[in-house]
Amino acid sequence: MNYPTVIQDLIECFKKIPGVGEKTAERYVLSLLEMEEETLEHFSNQLRNLKKNIVRCKICNNLSENDVCEICKDQSRDHSTICVVEEPKNVFSFEKAGTYMGTYHVLDGLISPLEGIRPENINIPSLLKRVEEEKIKEVIIAVKACVEGETTALYIAKKLEGTGVKVSKIAYGIPLGADMGYIDSSTLEISLENRQQIS
Amino acid sequence: MNYPTVIQDLIECFKKIPGVGEKTAERYVLSLLEMEEETLEHFSNQLRNLKKNIVRCKICNNLSENDVCEICKDQSRDHSTICVVEEPKNVFSFEKAGTYMGTYHVLDGLISPLEGIRPENINIPSLLKRVEEEKIKEVIIAVKACVEGETTALYIAKKLEGTGVKVSKIAYGIPLGADMGYIDSSTLEISLENRQQIS
Repeated sequence: MNYPTVIQDLIECFKKIPGVGEKTAERYVLSLLEMEEETLEHFSNQLRNLKKNIVRCKICNNLSENDVCEICKDQSRDHSTICVVEEPKNVFSFEKAGTYMGTYHVLDGLISPLEGIRPENINIPSLLKRVEEEKIKEVIIAVKACVEGETTALYIAKKLEGTGVKVSKIAYGIPLGADMGYIDSSTLEISLENRQQIS
Repeated sequence: MNYPTVIQDLIECFKKIPGVGEKTAERYVLSLLEMEEETLEHFSNQLRNLKKNIVRCKICNNLSENDVCEICKDQSRDHSTICVVEEPKNVFSFEKAGTYMGTYHVLDGLISPLEGIRPENINIPSLLKRVEEEKIKEVIIAVKACVEGETTALYIAKKLEGTGVKVSKIAYGIPLGADMGYIDSSTLEISLENRQQIS
């Protein structure tokens, strides 16, 4: 005998989420059983609405409830600076940090010749169009430090050459508060290379 | 700016599950966004149905889709043996192991004088009633080895004294395949105490 069908079925649903295995899904479903029916009803509704209510912003491609996202709509932000990120969640990480006041552009991937991902397969054309049409002063590339990230950054920089738009990339180095003993050697190398003079 | 409301709300829903924090909930919701709408619809329905379709078996108190659970209904099982467990999930663990062919009784807790949980606060009265009314030969206590587990086992054994019903408890010791170096000293102690002669 296995769990009753409804439970087993919900376990299978949870298992579809990357990183959730049999045991975890089981634990989740059994603890949901102890919640109020209203809580589950609400949970169920939100799940149903998720895909229906979320679209991509037609300007920056970020997750949004409307055609144009809250960030692109916000006139108090600096619309002459674009921070280019790989995924929507990166936008929210920067927003949580709370100091960046420009706009974003979500690529939905990085250029990867090995995997056959070309500039036109990700949202680079729309970025170049934005730079062309809007009054952009700076494009900040904020993608992870890896071959694909480097390639993407270089491609964008090359494409914007001669347009007078400043292209920069975020600083790579030792995270604040990190124990030096646990930092990998490539990061140590880059932190030495990008050292800044203090006096 | 935070995540769009639907996303933030669903994150809050996931965070209500014990063991799911902000980061994990965020990751789950973002990966749900990449699933098919049908998958989410199904997930949502199962979540809604969970509490509605699951009741407790009126005989053994296990999770069930009907008044009487599949195990209690199954006439091919040995109805003269009851395995007493703390939670419904323990039933399914034994069922997965697949060798036990008797019935179960889910206590929904253990006696704990410290926390004010008395025998009548958990499903002990219904167990005693079952032993009285059905033809029970053996009651196997399969609760975790702790003060509350011991208390519960002793209480049940004492209550069934003189009824001619055999009361046993599962073996506590070293799990199969476990590295002896990682076993706590109380388990080592009990494994020595309960040693079995082999020749």
